[in-house]
Amino acid sequence: MSQHSTSIEQRLSDLGIILPTPAAPVANYVGAVLTGSTLIVSGQLCFDAAGKLAPDHIGKMGDTATMEDGQAAARLCVINVLAQIKAVVGSLDRVSRCVRLGGFINCRPDFASLPQVMNGASDLMVEVFGDAGRHARSTIGVAQLPLNALVEVEGLFEIK
Amino acid sequence: MSQHSTSIEQRLSDLGIILPTPAAPVANYVGAVLTGSTLIVSGQLCFDAAGKLAPDHIGKMGDTATMEDGQAAARLCVINVLAQIKAVVGSLDRVSRCVRLGGFINCRPDFASLPQVMNGASDLMVEVFGDAGRHARSTIGVAQLPLNALVEVEGLFEIK
Amino acid sequence: MSQHSTSIEQRLSDLGIILPTPAAPVANYVGAVLTGSTLIVSGQLCFDAAGKLAPDHIGKMGDTATMEDGQAAARLCVINVLAQIKAVVGSLDRVSRCVRLGGFINCRPDFASLPQVMNGASDLMVEVFGDAGRHARSTIGVAQLPLNALVEVEGLFEIK
Repeated sequence: MSQHSTSIEQRLSDLGIILPTPAAPVANYVGAVLTGSTLIVSGQLCFDAAGKLAPDHIGKMGDTATMEDGQAAARLCVINVLAQIKAVVGSLDRVSRCVRLGGFINCRPDFASLPQVMNGASDLMVEVFGDAGRHARSTIGVAQLPLNALVEVEGLFEIK
Repeated sequence: MSQHSTSIEQRLSDLGIILPTPAAPVANYVGAVLTGSTLIVSGQLCFDAAGKLAPDHIGKMGDTATMEDGQAAARLCVINVLAQIKAVVGSLDRVSRCVRLGGFINCRPDFASLPQVMNGASDLMVEVFGDAGRHARSTIGVAQLPLNALVEVEGLFEIK
Repeated sequence: MSQHSTSIEQRLSDLGIILPTPAAPVANYVGAVLTGSTLIVSGQLCFDAAGKLAPDHIGKMGDTATMEDGQAAARLCVINVLAQIKAVVGSLDRVSRCVRLGGFINCRPDFASLPQVMNGASDLMVEVFGDAGRHARSTIGVAQLPLNALVEVEGLFEIK
């Protein structure tokens, strides 16, 4: 690695992460909206690099999915959040702070280990952005998510 | 129609939509708060023009409510969001962008067609504001909503 | 009381409220993030002054918890929100407005009296900040919360 390879996109590459091309919106909403210096990113599901929900990332925590499945799903959600940021503001280097992540975990009513699942999202955010990736966070367990996805993550970012 | 009838309120009228008068708050919160150029609108239920929840807009998606019921309920939520905006900033023409909608769908744990329900909200936003109505969006299925309402929608708007 | 005891911290003291020291984060997120003049506070659980969830503040509304339990839990969430604000911006006197509270109530699917629970949060906000405490609010009933807590509240504040 060159001594100049400090960009966020290089860091993603070092982590072996390839950002997917965000799917074109299929309804009257968009992946992210910039207002002033704040970027609001739509709730992203745990689609994989092929744009599909893997069988392990469908359903509810507390049924057959393991904690590792949940954390991997939360990590995928963040990758899709990053792809939406890049699509709207052009480069992840324009992110000065991850301000907030909202984590929605599809779960049985008796599954309370929700923060551990969401750590899969938060950990990746800090791997990618360092201290600028430390965010406020709300994590809740929901009755259902679009497409029966295991996890959905929304985000709010400060853009420079 | 005159060639000058391009205001948002005229467009609502053309759509046959009459904004309700927002009910006076019955608790220590308000319908919307303006901070800087950002307006945050409280979660709005699917009250009809008479301020009531129609029987078809009570309960959970996946029980007896149809997709059409869900979409109509989501549309009503947006009408109530618009009424709150008007009440706080005076005119819908001051909206420069619908930045975000959050959609909460009261559903059975096995009802995953949540985005289709929420499209009832997003579609109306774009009918009313055009491209400025295209928003970031998070849609989740929840265990319950106030008054057993079928849908609740909150919003974030950029005001000029 | 002196005629100068008009600070928010004095008001808390008058209400008999002692702010807890926020627990050090145990994961890659933080209690609150300031972006511009907006402070986003992470979802706070109903921990008591000892940093514990009381038995009455665990579980779902609609099971054994009473409305009084729910309201007391929502009030505790707000106390923890206030502690996070103080930790990040130094003094509660820097709050110029409580812009929004998001209330997540852990509930059975048939428990619809969610706003009454959340009033425990909203009422305290107005007791503390007066009219500047009147906020936009979204209240939903969720399938589960971290640690099986009864209530979680997140907040957005304008800081001067």
